[in-house]
Amino acid sequence: MASRVLVAGASGYTGALAARLVDRHPELELAAVTSRSDVGRSLAELYPRHRVDRVLEPFDLELYEELDAAIVAYPHGAAAETVRELHERGVKVVDLSADFRLRDVAVYEEWYVEHPAPELVPEAVYGLPELRRDEIAGAALVANPGCYPTATLLALAPLARAGLIEDVVVDAKSGVSGAGRAATQTTHFVEADENVTPYGVGRHRHMPEIDQELAALGAPVTTVFTPHLMPLDQGEMVSCYVTVEGDGATDARALYEEAYAAEPFVELADRPPGVRDVRDTNVARLHVHGDARTGKVFVFCVIDNLWKGASSQAVQNLNLMLGLPETMGID
Amino acid sequence: MASRVLVAGASGYTGALAARLVDRHPELELAAVTSRSDVGRSLAELYPRHRVDRVLEPFDLELYEELDAAIVAYPHGAAAETVRELHERGVKVVDLSADFRLRDVAVYEEWYVEHPAPELVPEAVYGLPELRRDEIAGAALVANPGCYPTATLLALAPLARAGLIEDVVVDAKSGVSGAGRAATQTTHFVEADENVTPYGVGRHRHMPEIDQELAALGAPVTTVFTPHLMPLDQGEMVSCYVTVEGDGATDARALYEEAYAAEPFVELADRPPGVRDVRDTNVARLHVHGDARTGKVFVFCVIDNLWKGASSQAVQNLNLMLGLPETMGID
Amino acid sequence: MASRVLVAGASGYTGALAARLVDRHPELELAAVTSRSDVGRSLAELYPRHRVDRVLEPFDLELYEELDAAIVAYPHGAAAETVRELHERGVKVVDLSADFRLRDVAVYEEWYVEHPAPELVPEAVYGLPELRRDEIAGAALVANPGCYPTATLLALAPLARAGLIEDVVVDAKSGVSGAGRAATQTTHFVEADENVTPYGVGRHRHMPEIDQELAALGAPVTTVFTPHLMPLDQGEMVSCYVTVEGDGATDARALYEEAYAAEPFVELADRPPGVRDVRDTNVARLHVHGDARTGKVFVFCVIDNLWKGASSQAVQNLNLMLGLPETMGID
Amino acid sequence: MASRVLVAGASGYTGALAARLVDRHPELELAAVTSRSDVGRSLAELYPRHRVDRVLEPFDLELYEELDAAIVAYPHGAAAETVRELHERGVKVVDLSADFRLRDVAVYEEWYVEHPAPELVPEAVYGLPELRRDEIAGAALVANPGCYPTATLLALAPLARAGLIEDVVVDAKSGVSGAGRAATQTTHFVEADENVTPYGVGRHRHMPEIDQELAALGAPVTTVFTPHLMPLDQGEMVSCYVTVEGDGATDARALYEEAYAAEPFVELADRPPGVRDVRDTNVARLHVHGDARTGKVFVFCVIDNLWKGASSQAVQNLNLMLGLPETMGID
Repeated sequence: MASRVLVAGASGYTGALAARLVDRHPELELAAVTSRSDVGRSLAELYPRHRVDRVLEPFDLELYEELDAAIVAYPHGAAAETVRELHERGVKVVDLSADFRLRDVAVYEEWYVEHPAPELVPEAVYGLPELRRDEIAGAALVANPGCYPTATLLALAPLARAGLIEDVVVDAKSGVSGAGRAATQTTHFVEADENVTPYGVGRHRHMPEIDQELAALGAPVTTVFTPHLMPLDQGEMVSCYVTVEGDGATDARALYEEAYAAEPFVELADRPPGVRDVRDTNVARLHVHGDARTGKVFVFCVIDNLWKGASSQAVQNLNLMLGLPETMGID
Repeated sequence: MASRVLVAGASGYTGALAARLVDRHPELELAAVTSRSDVGRSLAELYPRHRVDRVLEPFDLELYEELDAAIVAYPHGAAAETVRELHERGVKVVDLSADFRLRDVAVYEEWYVEHPAPELVPEAVYGLPELRRDEIAGAALVANPGCYPTATLLALAPLARAGLIEDVVVDAKSGVSGAGRAATQTTHFVEADENVTPYGVGRHRHMPEIDQELAALGAPVTTVFTPHLMPLDQGEMVSCYVTVEGDGATDARALYEEAYAAEPFVELADRPPGVRDVRDTNVARLHVHGDARTGKVFVFCVIDNLWKGASSQAVQNLNLMLGLPETMGID
Repeated sequence: MASRVLVAGASGYTGALAARLVDRHPELELAAVTSRSDVGRSLAELYPRHRVDRVLEPFDLELYEELDAAIVAYPHGAAAETVRELHERGVKVVDLSADFRLRDVAVYEEWYVEHPAPELVPEAVYGLPELRRDEIAGAALVANPGCYPTATLLALAPLARAGLIEDVVVDAKSGVSGAGRAATQTTHFVEADENVTPYGVGRHRHMPEIDQELAALGAPVTTVFTPHLMPLDQGEMVSCYVTVEGDGATDARALYEEAYAAEPFVELADRPPGVRDVRDTNVARLHVHGDARTGKVFVFCVIDNLWKGASSQAVQNLNLMLGLPETMGID
Repeated sequence: MASRVLVAGASGYTGALAARLVDRHPELELAAVTSRSDVGRSLAELYPRHRVDRVLEPFDLELYEELDAAIVAYPHGAAAETVRELHERGVKVVDLSADFRLRDVAVYEEWYVEHPAPELVPEAVYGLPELRRDEIAGAALVANPGCYPTATLLALAPLARAGLIEDVVVDAKSGVSGAGRAATQTTHFVEADENVTPYGVGRHRHMPEIDQELAALGAPVTTVFTPHLMPLDQGEMVSCYVTVEGDGATDARALYEEAYAAEPFVELADRPPGVRDVRDTNVARLHVHGDARTGKVFVFCVIDNLWKGASSQAVQNLNLMLGLPETMGID
């Protein structure tokens, strides 16, 4: 019997996509979709392209009995209490917000807000399946990674584990959907079109998340990370320039082949990838270049920020948590 | 000595561009720029690309003495009272709003709101220089046409004057800047990108304006007019399909050559134009096709909605009103 | 056992997509992919996004035994002989070219080239399933419709059948993929970006196809049809402005509800659709507006030109021809 | 009397723009426009937007007497002989190709082709006016810099001169016009749209040019440089991540203020710039960030690749060479 899954916060881009993926999933049943701002409206009206004919409801656990799991797509700060409520009822949760990504509550509070549910932080597992598959399978609460950390960590993990990273510059590029559905000057077509702009220069909330996970992999670095807004909808690229220990550049490619040989959602490409190669997929596509001229290693990784960077990765995590085949519903 | 020109409502797209054009104009001096929402902010900060280093002020005629003229770029309804105040002081006004375009106050009130200054309507001249050059030169108040009416009227005037229009379908396409600077779901990059959408189907405020002016030219028709939003920034095309009286299709092109031979800002192209051909110019570029297969006349007209469709046409009108060469500052 | 399907001409946009759809189809097996220009190259290299790991072969029926069906994606003129060869071997064929769409060989030769296989024309069925489902199911050769005719005929069929069409203007808009994979000035990013251009003005090869099928439905009109190139990748819209007999505008919507109630791939929308609503789907989405102001009926129809306008419609036809569920592999 | 200027190679993007800038320049006269591939065609037909009504001629110095100067916009390898011919006649030349940018013929031949006119290399001046204004003023032959080197060198010069650069990563992003007018798979709309792709990874011809000029400024580094193709037309950004000696990050901004205070075409912005801020201008806009978190200096520089990156910079050089005000015709 299919597991019943709630999607909370389904009127935003990532929540709506999560609802669609759950709705089509052979072993999941979309129990309900909730919204804080659009209660009563139909998802099919807000997102005709998703073809999910469900009405957005308020979040109220009395309304939907027998939930097995939930994907929470609320903003940071707002998510934690909803997560707590679900968790207390024994509902397995994948949280798309940043609330449970950082292990250290003090770090969270430095970069975000006062933590609304610090007691749950130790229970949460950082949900990057390629790095923590087993932990995720046993978890009751999974913190879905940020889109930039997803791409960056997949790009750097093999070098980090090999202890080769001395210094690293990550220049990231993202489509506008990464900024969410809120209509602002930044997301206005006329501002983003025919434009490229760096943002979060020197301070972006994905920095501590990247550094935390690189350290956990064995690379205690302070990553240079600068994202740029690009005139496209979905898609994200990280271009990583790594200063490596010794002559680590020589065999970099082999490290990646070994690390990712069995991964269903990681592709190693012979040529530099484009973000279009992975649009509407859960795939991370990588290209590794050991640069003889400078001695550095360049790694380029593309993902779809709404899919592998958010919603389809949430389903990948859910599959693991529920004992389903990892690729089900997202391949 | 340069004429002193105020630009009221300079924080929007058309007002900001008008400020830039006035600022660079050899015989105009930018007296002040005003805003309702962004007082105290710098135009150079809001629009680095315009390079107009002026601070937005509140609208208060006590602040800026000796105005010769003003361009008012407020929304309809809000513009009329500002226009009245300027008009009463003897300041020549080009109004970018719809408030003084319609001759019949009842029609205005049917399509817009209660008219805030109906007594001024008879004084206003409809500011399409190619059709009303002499009236504009003598006017104290000019109603700058809407962007779609500008393109449509230039596309149809020769046929209208010749009494040849029996029926006409206008399919219009516009870039997103036509929707203004307000951040909405419609102007969100993710909604507009890779998309095309009709809007105002069956009811768009430019309809009565087009019909009024076609009637004045001798073509009392009810125009079929449907605009579409396109994934580009600046630029507008009207594709006009005209059912003509008798065998009017045969010599259509000659009518246009005669009508526009001396016009500095109208180009007749041998091939269908693209909106890019006129980007950042005051030019309307036309292609006329007498269609042997169907007996209809097709006319395609492209303009830049922010330039000829708004701000540079306002300067063209100002040039005429102030006795300056018509093309000054906008060629 | 799955039916074995060849895709001939798989290096172009529509052929490559057809190969992908066949490759993932639960009851079809991709027998081989051929190319005239890229033999020996891998589809996965040409189109990483399709993830079809097959090498392009020359077209040679000795190479691949036991074909059940084929999708031919060659240009017009070049397709007919390949179709003949397949047909003679008893292979069911869906032809994406224009070679078998026109019933009258003389008309074909007026708009295209000398017909390479006129004897097959009578056997071919025009493959628009919503209009000719039964014929297609029994056909050995199906001529897949052009993208514009697909959208236009779905938009106009209910009015045509009701005998209501007196005159019709179709203003069409298409993304650049409709121009194919050939690199030309027209498809150069810098020419298409931030641009809109009419093309085929007065003469476009889809005109006789549209008129032929409208006549077959009961509407013997000469359609005004003008396509425009738009700055987007996939997606197509037709905006149809219909002069109707009598007061046909009143009940137009009801005609469509009746005609399309049971169609799995036709959606009737309450609001005007955007091309994004149907991206990467086999869906045609329609909006019907009876216009009280002008007495005309407006119909807007959006499709994905590469999917419903070509490759997924080919699979829909193949499903019918092979006795499979019509929606299999494309929903 | 205006100086007579030939533009050779005016059918490409940079040549056509150069022709337009010369044509409108108050003290230059467009003597002729030449083309290798489009002789006899009109520039107004190829580029309606430039409104230069001139017919493309073959290159033949017998045809156009009394040339004072020339802008050569041929590809590398092809340019050098044309430059030689002009130079021998005493015509001042700005060469847009790479043929005379590299001081060391051996390096040129390693990255490009056999040098067709090595004897002229010592005479050529590298034409970045902000760095070599006086040399340019006295030169008979100026090698216009590449677009990426222009942006990169303006971004790094103050740090290079101060001897602060220890290591530098340059991540560059460019619009598609940078790839030129040739229609290829790379420049096909469908490939570039909604995409971002790195290219020239590990080996790009602008590398030796950047390193040569940085060394000349006092920074003998091997620059990490990787360009990315972006889905936009005109515009280029370089994001430079500099590892600095000592605590150089602290006062980085002051170095730039001092270096560029008097430069008419360099802007120092308080916030990160967007490429749109400089579209259709000769301006380089910079933002400098001393990063406390990592100790590095980040410098972002945007230019219009066709203007400051090519054609308007050529006119800036020409102004200097001809003793005209440096900003004439390009401000």
